[in-house]
Amino acid sequence: MESEIILIGNELLIGKVQDTNGKFIIDHLIPLGMQITQITIIPDDLLRIRNAVLDSLTRKPMFIFTSGGLGPTFDDMTLEGINQILKPFQEMKENADALEMIYQSYSKRFKKSTKEVKSFLEKRYPLHHKMAILPQCAIPLNNSEGMAPGVLIPKEFTNGVTEIIALPGVPLELEAIFVQHIVSRVQKLTRDIKYYQCGFIFANLGESRFTELIYSIKDKYPEIWIKTHPRSKLMNGKRIYEVEVHLTAFTKNKSIPNKINELYNILKEHVQNSRGKILKENPLLE
Amino acid sequence: MESEIILIGNELLIGKVQDTNGKFIIDHLIPLGMQITQITIIPDDLLRIRNAVLDSLTRKPMFIFTSGGLGPTFDDMTLEGINQILKPFQEMKENADALEMIYQSYSKRFKKSTKEVKSFLEKRYPLHHKMAILPQCAIPLNNSEGMAPGVLIPKEFTNGVTEIIALPGVPLELEAIFVQHIVSRVQKLTRDIKYYQCGFIFANLGESRFTELIYSIKDKYPEIWIKTHPRSKLMNGKRIYEVEVHLTAFTKNKSIPNKINELYNILKEHVQNSRGKILKENPLLE
Repeated sequence: MESEIILIGNELLIGKVQDTNGKFIIDHLIPLGMQITQITIIPDDLLRIRNAVLDSLTRKPMFIFTSGGLGPTFDDMTLEGINQILKPFQEMKENADALEMIYQSYSKRFKKSTKEVKSFLEKRYPLHHKMAILPQCAIPLNNSEGMAPGVLIPKEFTNGVTEIIALPGVPLELEAIFVQHIVSRVQKLTRDIKYYQCGFIFANLGESRFTELIYSIKDKYPEIWIKTHPRSKLMNGKRIYEVEVHLTAFTKNKSIPNKINELYNILKEHVQNSRGKILKENPLLE
Repeated sequence: MESEIILIGNELLIGKVQDTNGKFIIDHLIPLGMQITQITIIPDDLLRIRNAVLDSLTRKPMFIFTSGGLGPTFDDMTLEGINQILKPFQEMKENADALEMIYQSYSKRFKKSTKEVKSFLEKRYPLHHKMAILPQCAIPLNNSEGMAPGVLIPKEFTNGVTEIIALPGVPLELEAIFVQHIVSRVQKLTRDIKYYQCGFIFANLGESRFTELIYSIKDKYPEIWIKTHPRSKLMNGKRIYEVEVHLTAFTKNKSIPNKINELYNILKEHVQNSRGKILKENPLLE
């Protein structure tokens, strides 16, 4: 099962902010057995948002998670971008549930009654309405850490396969909505799938040489993805070369752990037989 | 002037590695006045590489920088993916200059003569050849920190506008090639363009309220991009809300610094007149 992530915000593209939202989503989805097949980072630009979501929909992931652009300001345009490609034609209109969430949120933050908050907001912050203007088919997700609700677009209105989950860009808010509303939703779908990973690091043997074995063996283990990472570092003024071998699998197949262990041992022995040295082991934990 | 970055590697999509290559490229391009309009992160998958590069080419950036997938192993397939969309039809073939670079690199690393290295590699590491198999039109870029040369695809073979620069995924190697071969190349193109940024942080005034002013003023400063970032943090058990205002411009227009300063002051005064408090200033430095 595959998902994609679209991170929206110019600040990510001028080096002002290093993304943490994509990392958070990945770190929570991978252990659930949900693969991420693309991350797209784009600026706050309506056409680019529309096109990135459209491109992603053609690849038919199970979910598209977007981050950013749900706030009250003029450059928050994620939902408008998404709305342009929903079908049949959707109106952007005020969602009563979303508006209620916004009032509740202010009311909690300022310790005032909902009634007080309503008249205060109407008078002083008319832009709060913008956060409640959603595509007609959208389902708002309560944001316990901020104003802008998350937004779920059911798959019936996208390509029939992909559910779009739009999350705010503020990490605290994204994380709260993700944990409260998304994790169990994904879990239901990936219940049978598990993610496995293990690996080791070796030295004294080049990556190219090691790879020859992988070429000859990888087709025997089609469900296991074998990756090597060469690295070099300076140690006491000397450059040290090492290679990390990493085995992963996303699968329902319960015999995979045995196969991973088998492959792990074959690769390790190959290194040792070629006078390579195992520096660190990270075997499969179950 | 706009560029895109494509980061290739499953490890980026399972949360094993947090990207530093994209950040490095951004941090070096932005001060040169080169905007980044999209970053795409994809796995080591031939079809996905091909499609990501193809999609990017349709947006006609000045450069596409790719990172990863240039090594000797079977899952290093960046050049094959790129090659599939070059025109006219390009053969993937051994590039004599690239092969020479690989020999030089081994020779330096193992302190052996090129002749010794050649016979050693032929016998023991036949896969080293793979790193020299490039699209016919490619120009190899010497990698002073590792084996796999970087690769430049001239714009005549893409869409007539975009130059593709394929860089290795190992940060040390990517950084060396970038600094030695790319920076001056970009600099020549962006000589007249400058990047400006400044901003301030305020509290006691909501982002929505502040935004009302921006709505009314932003069209007077079309070249300046105004962005607000709301933030909240816990301080002595109390939640503090603050908003960062960030002004940026990429432009040849020499009058922009004055305009940025003018806008900066208007926005700051607005905050102060609305009983907001300026917490931190980061004015325009020239």
